Amino acid sequence: LVDSQPAVVVFDVFGTVVDWRGSVMAAGANLAGHLERSIDWGMFAAEWRREGYLRPIMEVFTGQREWVPVDRLLEDCLGVLLRRYRLGHLAEADRLQLLSVWRRLTPWPDAVAGLTRLKARYLIGPLSNGGFALLTEMAKAGGLPWDFVISTELFRAYKPASEVYTGAARLLQRSPEEVMLVAAHASDLDAARANGMRTAYVPRPREWGPVSRSEPDMVTDRFDIVARDFLDLSDQLGA
Amino acid sequence: LVDSQPAVVVFDVFGTVVDWRGSVMAAGANLAGHLERSIDWGMFAAEWRREGYLRPIMEVFTGQREWVPVDRLLEDCLGVLLRRYRLGHLAEADRLQLLSVWRRLTPWPDAVAGLTRLKARYLIGPLSNGGFALLTEMAKAGGLPWDFVISTELFRAYKPASEVYTGAARLLQRSPEEVMLVAAHASDLDAARANGMRTAYVPRPREWGPVSRSEPDMVTDRFDIVARDFLDLSDQLGA
Repeated sequence: LVDSQPAVVVFDVFGTVVDWRGSVMAAGANLAGHLERSIDWGMFAAEWRREGYLRPIMEVFTGQREWVPVDRLLEDCLGVLLRRYRLGHLAEADRLQLLSVWRRLTPWPDAVAGLTRLKARYLIGPLSNGGFALLTEMAKAGGLPWDFVISTELFRAYKPASEVYTGAARLLQRSPEEVMLVAAHASDLDAARANGMRTAYVPRPREWGPVSRSEPDMVTDRFDIVARDFLDLSDQLGA
Repeated sequence: LVDSQPAVVVFDVFGTVVDWRGSVMAAGANLAGHLERSIDWGMFAAEWRREGYLRPIMEVFTGQREWVPVDRLLEDCLGVLLRRYRLGHLAEADRLQLLSVWRRLTPWPDAVAGLTRLKARYLIGPLSNGGFALLTEMAKAGGLPWDFVISTELFRAYKPASEVYTGAARLLQRSPEEVMLVAAHASDLDAARANGMRTAYVPRPREWGPVSRSEPDMVTDRFDIVARDFLDLSDQLGA
């Protein structure tokens, strides 16, 4: 157990709580009957994540572009990808079905059980670059038992901007040290730590596919907790 | 059943979901052992609600004063009341305990069961003038099973300002007609309705005390639903 406990535990969502890649692949497979040829949906998912989410969000963070809702970023990128994969003829209903997968991402196998344990002892909620509606609908679809939903949309900014971490603590009326961020990404945790939050690193080595991308030599001793999964995290937090 | 269902059901909280008066009275009774004389905690509660909440919120709404967080309004008023009731000598721990009652208000007897049923079919959450942290902690203490928390703090405004209703619908990415407000107060419902939301009126005739304040002749046919309590509301919404 850590020495002193946080009051609130907030979570990165994409990759940390839910398996975006597997979910997009499953949505693609569902479309397969409508298509004439097979698509590498794993690659499709990775490109969508990188070009429709990570890259434009970083451009907003660095001031290269104005803030726009994440839904718009994902939808614009989907248009590019459908052309790239020669799926421009996709029926509108199929396109919308594919787009909506981001609201139905499947939790990692340990996520709901771990969150349920943590909820019994802590206030828990997402602190995610996903939109407020997206996160709310995803929780309903996947059974994520949040006490509250904090989207960076509330601050018209994206992680890792400082105002997101400080703004979340302010909304919760807690000092940053009373809030712990759980994430599978060191960059997110480093920003949280720089803004005074506690940190828990839960690597998700299969976020990008079946070939493990864990970084065995990564130095993690700057984080308050390193946990194998949300059940181990619950153990370490006494929940 | 109503003809077409909303997608999201939002709730006024103070008086509609929770019994603020009974809760303040109980908190006062807990203090009684520390006090030399008895206090009319029912009157104390009513004055706190009126002078520390309803009146200053209306002053913010009408532009007579700047927006400040509701916690500040309640705390400032508590200072006034403690002097008025000659409780200025109250220990700081007792004062803080009394102040925190607003984060532990007791749900009406039908509330948790009704919300649990509604949650199985709808996205549900508060749309309250209570602060984000206050609403989150109250839900935890009282077992209110919200999918999300929307405080008017997110808009730095108070109901019945239009931007609160339109802002909530925008965050949820729903048209106002897809959102239903449940409240025990016609003025709140009228503002929601003026901004396009559906409305459900659930009178709480004992909000202000044991003498029923229902208004039997009040015209309610402008509301989409009139329900006796949250169980009746669940029935009418097919949940």
